[in-house]
Amino acid sequence: MTEQLSTTDLSTQDGSIPAPPDFAGFLAQLAPDLPAHCILTKVEQTRVYECDGLSLYRSLPPVVLLPENEAQVIAIMRACQTFNIPIVARGSGTGLSGGAMPHAQGVLVGLAKLNRIVRVDPLACVAVVQPGVRNLAISEAVAPLGLYYAPDPSSQIACSIGGNVAENSGGVHCLKYGLTVHNVMRVRVVTIEGEVLELGGEAPDSPGLNLLAAFIGSEGMLGLVTEVTVRLIPKPELAQVVMASFLSVEAAGQAVTEVIAGGIIPAGLELMDKRSVHMVEPFVRAGYDLEAEAILLCESDGTPEEVREEITRIEAIFKKVGASRLQVSNSETERLLFWAGRKNAFPAAGRISPDYYCMDGTIPRRHLGQVLRAIEAMEEEYGLRCANVFHAGDGNLHPLILFDANVADEVERAEAFGAAILELCVEVGGTITGEHGVGIEKINQMCYQFKREELDAFSAFKRAFDPYGLLNPEKLIPTLVRCAEHGKMHIHHGELSFPDLPRF
Amino acid sequence: MTEQLSTTDLSTQDGSIPAPPDFAGFLAQLAPDLPAHCILTKVEQTRVYECDGLSLYRSLPPVVLLPENEAQVIAIMRACQTFNIPIVARGSGTGLSGGAMPHAQGVLVGLAKLNRIVRVDPLACVAVVQPGVRNLAISEAVAPLGLYYAPDPSSQIACSIGGNVAENSGGVHCLKYGLTVHNVMRVRVVTIEGEVLELGGEAPDSPGLNLLAAFIGSEGMLGLVTEVTVRLIPKPELAQVVMASFLSVEAAGQAVTEVIAGGIIPAGLELMDKRSVHMVEPFVRAGYDLEAEAILLCESDGTPEEVREEITRIEAIFKKVGASRLQVSNSETERLLFWAGRKNAFPAAGRISPDYYCMDGTIPRRHLGQVLRAIEAMEEEYGLRCANVFHAGDGNLHPLILFDANVADEVERAEAFGAAILELCVEVGGTITGEHGVGIEKINQMCYQFKREELDAFSAFKRAFDPYGLLNPEKLIPTLVRCAEHGKMHIHHGELSFPDLPRF
Repeated sequence: MTEQLSTTDLSTQDGSIPAPPDFAGFLAQLAPDLPAHCILTKVEQTRVYECDGLSLYRSLPPVVLLPENEAQVIAIMRACQTFNIPIVARGSGTGLSGGAMPHAQGVLVGLAKLNRIVRVDPLACVAVVQPGVRNLAISEAVAPLGLYYAPDPSSQIACSIGGNVAENSGGVHCLKYGLTVHNVMRVRVVTIEGEVLELGGEAPDSPGLNLLAAFIGSEGMLGLVTEVTVRLIPKPELAQVVMASFLSVEAAGQAVTEVIAGGIIPAGLELMDKRSVHMVEPFVRAGYDLEAEAILLCESDGTPEEVREEITRIEAIFKKVGASRLQVSNSETERLLFWAGRKNAFPAAGRISPDYYCMDGTIPRRHLGQVLRAIEAMEEEYGLRCANVFHAGDGNLHPLILFDANVADEVERAEAFGAAILELCVEVGGTITGEHGVGIEKINQMCYQFKREELDAFSAFKRAFDPYGLLNPEKLIPTLVRCAEHGKMHIHHGELSFPDLPRF
Repeated sequence: MTEQLSTTDLSTQDGSIPAPPDFAGFLAQLAPDLPAHCILTKVEQTRVYECDGLSLYRSLPPVVLLPENEAQVIAIMRACQTFNIPIVARGSGTGLSGGAMPHAQGVLVGLAKLNRIVRVDPLACVAVVQPGVRNLAISEAVAPLGLYYAPDPSSQIACSIGGNVAENSGGVHCLKYGLTVHNVMRVRVVTIEGEVLELGGEAPDSPGLNLLAAFIGSEGMLGLVTEVTVRLIPKPELAQVVMASFLSVEAAGQAVTEVIAGGIIPAGLELMDKRSVHMVEPFVRAGYDLEAEAILLCESDGTPEEVREEITRIEAIFKKVGASRLQVSNSETERLLFWAGRKNAFPAAGRISPDYYCMDGTIPRRHLGQVLRAIEAMEEEYGLRCANVFHAGDGNLHPLILFDANVADEVERAEAFGAAILELCVEVGGTITGEHGVGIEKINQMCYQFKREELDAFSAFKRAFDPYGLLNPEKLIPTLVRCAEHGKMHIHHGELSFPDLPRF
């Protein structure tokens, strides 16, 4: 793992180790533009920034900068370019793929102080916010207008909209309402040159090249975002959840496939396996069925007429594929209770295991049952337990690998287990991310997901915006050298095959 | 106009005129890979390709190539790179902004023969098609499965999915179901180097940089598409249209705003002004109200319960803002008749005017009424009539400027009128395209829409994929020299002002 982080884009042409950056000169240039209280350099101040939500990977940043306005962000970018200093941006630090893990020779730029809601336009259903605004704070601010911001990552109390943009975050309701990329209309970006761009717009189409979508999910590799225009949607009049038990994960998977194939797009469609249910129920007491091999939570929202009609159709499908128990939430309190179990799956894991590692991959829905069986087999292979909570409607898996970091080699086994799950996702035609991004965590799997020409295209795009390679280096896009070392290049179109992986 | 087309990206560094490309050498290199029947060089063969749907602009292509498979596309790209020959791609040639207008020293690559539906997956609701497949042919092929492809440009009988990808095409139903960019999940692309990339995927999120969205709407500037994976959606059980008359365009505009602000997203929401209604009604006999200053067509689709409930809410809003007449389609025949008028607005224009020029811009919905008034004032100024049909729910305008090309200076006045409408769109916070793309038509207005840094970002991205500048040169992204000559740079953030434009 340490070895994983040792390569650097800053290495000199002849491979010799470059001189450390001139932080003194850098801070002197920055002094007129950035007040002293926005600059942290003491270890007791910077320690808190050494990792994000993926605490397996840490790196102490030599300098942390906390700008309070766009002019300061511009000054930082210009100074970094002058002194050739890498920049890693950070929102609230809740990311799960290490996208905000600092660079050992760079600055960490925290955008949490840019936390103003600039403008709300209730007629156009749009809000303009700074990147440090918390995801949930947007919905809270516009609730009196009957509106909300749809993407709802589990960390939504804490995570920032800037971080959501960087990682293209999702959430329980993204099946119906889309990911961050579908709910952001415009971003204001500062480039490494210190120039300000506005990408996208409030109109449905935008002339020129669509660079907005490329910025969303670009993990701080292309520029720093200083303003985000989000789409607001009217709060549905009613939402109800069907909770259904199944006697096999295959049956639950079949139910998911049939709901979607039936033309229903539920507001949420989540699957929890028996281990998750048993992990969560004693903690949350959500009334989950402990006999079930898998439960589904399927939400319908809209007008009361729409919800009634959709729930009837969902129940019919669940019965047809053999649900052993069915329950519809009969109040808002009960609906929230049903969800509370799902939303607390991660903390609940902490009650039964000292550590857990949350993976994130996506598969075609039709393979849900088979992939769950394959993960079960991997539990044996790696000698670790795994609890599964899925955004099943999206085919987005979140296996929670349970381990104890104090037991010899369990960290390594957890990582290997996680990597095997991601490679299985690619094998069945899926991808190595659902909503957590690539960051540092999945950079090796990028070699597995993409072929050389596709990685080249990413690099070319990255260079067009960051010719100096200063923005979040060593994340997201692996070098070909790394891929060669990792020993895995592209099986995506059957050009190579890995006979040690299960095939479907 | 001729002067507009005379600049060339192929000019030599010192400004001297470059030697014409070596087409003989080029065709000799290509001969082993591309059969003779796929190569057109005689004027009587190539004449038909000299323009697309924007027939105001024409340029005879020296060579037309009609590849039949991806290997031939790769061979063409490699040969073009070797001989430094510009490439313009063409689908069915129905585009309205001149995106497929040939280059006078380049090859025109028609992709119409790549017209196979490769695969349909009814469970995943996905179809994989070649770029030459017609838009409507996809829906026809999957109709027996109860599915369809949502974006429906008026040219959908003829236009190709490849062209739709190039222009990010829309249509009447895009308000609810999105533009091409929202309905395409993956494209297979051949780069100028002859390499094959797959961008995007069937999963909701895709790791790495989102280059898929940047390719959609890139007007053939980044690569040639050889395969498109589209999302299919279940055909709604029922669709009904409310047709409403209003005594002023402002009232109709207000009705549009209130529908959207009320949280209703109709399947279509179209506005026609009095001139359009009078132009269309004698031709189609759709039963349009000739007394109205504007009519709205508002479609609801879904289950019968959903439609009933939504129609009730729409009618209530229309009544509240003063609709003078309301009618709900009571059969599928009547629904199609209501739409027939709207869909035939362009051909109907041909009955009352020798020529017409269809513009395409987008504005915030709240300015609908005011912009219609401003266009009325422009009719006086330019001495030409204009009929207005709008995708009102999107704020997407399609003014039809009526003129006679045989009358001295009417072409120039029509162009100037069109340009003034586009600049007005930007002025009120909108954009210069809705769904027709930029092409050659709106390249000067790009100077007006974007500032230097933003145009630089487009150019940098373009160069990353096409360092030789061979893919559809002189379209979409204006050079800064062009912008300086056009005399208009960016008013978008109020940095410059143009006092001769009306202000809101």
